[in-house]
Amino acid sequence: MIKVVCKAKLKQGVTVEEYLKIAREVISETRKEKGCITYTIHEDIHDPTILTMLEEWVNEEAINQHNQSEHVLKIVPELRKLRESTEINLYREVE
Amino acid sequence: MIKVVCKAKLKQGVTVEEYLKIAREVISETRKEKGCITYTIHEDIHDPTILTMLEEWVNEEAINQHNQSEHVLKIVPELRKLRESTEINLYREVE
Repeated sequence: MIKVVCKAKLKQGVTVEEYLKIAREVISETRKEKGCITYTIHEDIHDPTILTMLEEWVNEEAINQHNQSEHVLKIVPELRKLRESTEINLYREVE
Repeated sequence: MIKVVCKAKLKQGVTVEEYLKIAREVISETRKEKGCITYTIHEDIHDPTILTMLEEWVNEEAINQHNQSEHVLKIVPELRKLRESTEINLYREVE
C-alpha cells in the first residue's frame, strides 16, 4: 500500500466551500477507481486555508493511473488555480 | 476524530535506522495511550530523508495529553536534534 498526503494552501479570498464545490467531482470519481482504498479531504483545525487529501492506494501503479484519469486531468487544473501552493508526498509504512 | 500529519526532514548524514532506533520507544508507548487510534511512521518513497508520522486520535484532548506524556517529553527532544525541520498539522475530515 502507498499513502499519499496532498496538502493544498488556498489563495487568499478563496473559500473552503468554493474549493469543495469543484473538488467533490474528483473525490467521488476517484473513490470509484479500482486501486483506490481511501480518498478523503481534511481541513486543518487551526488554519482553514489548508486542505489536505489523505489517500491510500493499492500500489504506485494505481496512483499513476489516477493521475492520467479523465477526472484528474479535467478538474485538478481548476483546483490548482485556487491554490497558493501544493505539497505532495507518497509514503510507505516503515513501522 | 483528529488526524495528525507530522512530517520530519532529517539532517544531512542522519540515517533512517539511527532515527528509528530512538523513535521506536515513543511509537510503542504512544500506541498504548487510551486516546490513540493509530500511530505509524512512514518513509517518503522518493526521498528517504523525509519521515512522517500519520496519526489518528479520538479528540484534541488526547493529543494534548500525549504531548505532555513522559515518553514524548523525554524522547521527542532527542528526535528533534536529528531533524532539519518539522511540520505538524492537525486535521478534521471534511468529506
